Amino acid sequence: MITITDSRIEEYLLKLQPEYDPHLREMEKMAQDRQFPIVDRLVGRFLYLVTRLKQPRLVVEMGSGFGYSAYWFARAISINCKVVLIEYAEENIEYARRLFAEKGFAARAEFRVGNALEIGREYRDIDILFIDIDKFQYPDAIEAMLPNLSPDALVIADNSLWHGRVVENNGDKESDGVRRFNEFIFSRNDFFTTIIPLRDGILLAYRLK
Amino acid sequence: MITITDSRIEEYLLKLQPEYDPHLREMEKMAQDRQFPIVDRLVGRFLYLVTRLKQPRLVVEMGSGFGYSAYWFARAISINCKVVLIEYAEENIEYARRLFAEKGFAARAEFRVGNALEIGREYRDIDILFIDIDKFQYPDAIEAMLPNLSPDALVIADNSLWHGRVVENNGDKESDGVRRFNEFIFSRNDFFTTIIPLRDGILLAYRLK
Repeated sequence: MITITDSRIEEYLLKLQPEYDPHLREMEKMAQDRQFPIVDRLVGRFLYLVTRLKQPRLVVEMGSGFGYSAYWFARAISINCKVVLIEYAEENIEYARRLFAEKGFAARAEFRVGNALEIGREYRDIDILFIDIDKFQYPDAIEAMLPNLSPDALVIADNSLWHGRVVENNGDKESDGVRRFNEFIFSRNDFFTTIIPLRDGILLAYRLK
Repeated sequence: MITITDSRIEEYLLKLQPEYDPHLREMEKMAQDRQFPIVDRLVGRFLYLVTRLKQPRLVVEMGSGFGYSAYWFARAISINCKVVLIEYAEENIEYARRLFAEKGFAARAEFRVGNALEIGREYRDIDILFIDIDKFQYPDAIEAMLPNLSPDALVIADNSLWHGRVVENNGDKESDGVRRFNEFIFSRNDFFTTIIPLRDGILLAYRLK
């Protein structure tokens, strides 16, 4: 396991970026208490900024957990735009539904329970596709979703450095999935792809019209 | 001095992202030979992606060196859009001018020699402001340029972690400049700001309309 970013730097960044939104803090606390993996606040803020720049009409999330990243997307999109949360665990989606309703985000979100690869394909002209499902499924996910992306879509994948295990060679199927996913998308000339070594690695692939 | 990103991760990222552009490689080699500081390829690719998302009409660079970052901006902008290079060393600007001409980028660039704070103020409605001058000047630069930004401008500053020295307390004027700059821009409610711990720290501040 490799430390991707020095912890003193992370601390400095968090101090610079206070967040007073009680719903965010509730989710961050819950993630900590339950040891539930979420993209953290630094990644959340980065997703927010990228989404503001992109101005998507439709964001589809594959693997929403209890809605932390979706909450950042919902904050960043305009009214009449939509974020779709897909998650296999019903209790997570019910939590997200309640929290979004409290925040007034219900109208800009759709909540789906089930298999992300199946449900994801129901959507077309996706402007931002966010991938955060089981890592061994990443290659299948991108292949399945390519026809459903808008011509200038942005694909964002969490854990694209997988705790640094992409540079080791353990042969486990999760690391292998992430590595093959990275190689697949970087090899495509119709995407401009880069990985930001923020937290566990955020891959951004922008489809070139 | 703190290692912001593990070197094995940087190597992995570079291998995934080959660049066959001979001008880029020439500049990267020259930077290495002369020990001239440039944003590296990973940052260059990140700037490219952000610029594609932002679609700026006018990019102004304060502190262009011999044009490496400007080259990435020039690649990313549309025709009829412009990147302004400002640099105090004439030989650097002459190098950039020749290289841009060879690449066919001359029409989308303006080359200025002199004080970045003075020359920068000649431009209005700046969509992307890139700051990479002497670090102690960062606070003055942002204050001087605020009135010249477009309503949804993106400010990008290189070296916003200054080799990790922002978390130490050496009292040198360069670290102090970066720290004060970060605090200033993060404290403003009209900007949404975040720092990406890529190479030496890239600050992104998006002006909220």
